[in-house]
Amino acid sequence: MAKKYWMTEEPIDPNDCIEKVVRNEAGAVNTFIGTVREFTNGKRTLFLEYQAYVPMAEKILAQIGEEIQEKWGNTDTAIAHRIGRLEITDTAVVIAVSTPHRKDAFEASRYAIERIKEIVPIWKKEHWEDGTQWIGDQKEKTAYDDRIPSEEEMRDD
Amino acid sequence: MAKKYWMTEEPIDPNDCIEKVVRNEAGAVNTFIGTVREFTNGKRTLFLEYQAYVPMAEKILAQIGEEIQEKWGNTDTAIAHRIGRLEITDTAVVIAVSTPHRKDAFEASRYAIERIKEIVPIWKKEHWEDGTQWIGDQKEKTAYDDRIPSEEEMRDD
Repeated sequence: MAKKYWMTEEPIDPNDCIEKVVRNEAGAVNTFIGTVREFTNGKRTLFLEYQAYVPMAEKILAQIGEEIQEKWGNTDTAIAHRIGRLEITDTAVVIAVSTPHRKDAFEASRYAIERIKEIVPIWKKEHWEDGTQWIGDQKEKTAYDDRIPSEEEMRDD
Repeated sequence: MAKKYWMTEEPIDPNDCIEKVVRNEAGAVNTFIGTVREFTNGKRTLFLEYQAYVPMAEKILAQIGEEIQEKWGNTDTAIAHRIGRLEITDTAVVIAVSTPHRKDAFEASRYAIERIKEIVPIWKKEHWEDGTQWIGDQKEKTAYDDRIPSEEEMRDD
């Protein structure tokens, strides 16, 4: 797979991201893996569903890679995000960032996950033991009860 | 491989560490991978050699995992460090830490690599283009020209 920023319905192997950023100039690779957690504030999750506007989401993942390069320099980044139904412990997202020195790799990888949650159009539907809920934005500040925004509504933002 | 903290002469697959820490309670896994960089301050490295007192090193890696558990709680950690001859871009160390939330995973993983460089008896011999040098401690504050400390000298510390 040649893409460095991609959405997929298939399980993600962390190596798919890591191998794309390992290089002679780098001494450090930081990888962040987001997995499906069973309990959140005592509530049990049975499984999750992720939906995304795929071309838009992939474009914004690539933009995050560019932001990282501008901020830290001499970086290489790969990000994969899964969509569809995910079971407990499944991997939802993998970020890998390589840099010459470790401090930058940690900081840039942390930046990437925060930005993903801020600006990438991906929605999570929680299937709790006692009901379901669309999580509005990924920082979980807005909840949608019934549906996610339409692509048109997104464009109006 | 059942060990969660190990030294090895074989290539390390990051998944060997990641799979050991993924669990229902965790929503985040941070992985740090240290790779062999070609240039350091303009000097070209041809290859590296790592030596370690293996049983002592593995014991101290496990101790670092315990320190992380004490500091952050609800963590799971796996660490593998390679020894022997490593080529440019080869993986020297893999750390994986899982926690319920991402902030702790980043912090604990960063802590682990700093502690490894402070307290684990592993020595690196740089094979530069223009000579060789044993790097004394991994934070590179002390250099040994000819040899690494004997196991007895270590015990005297």
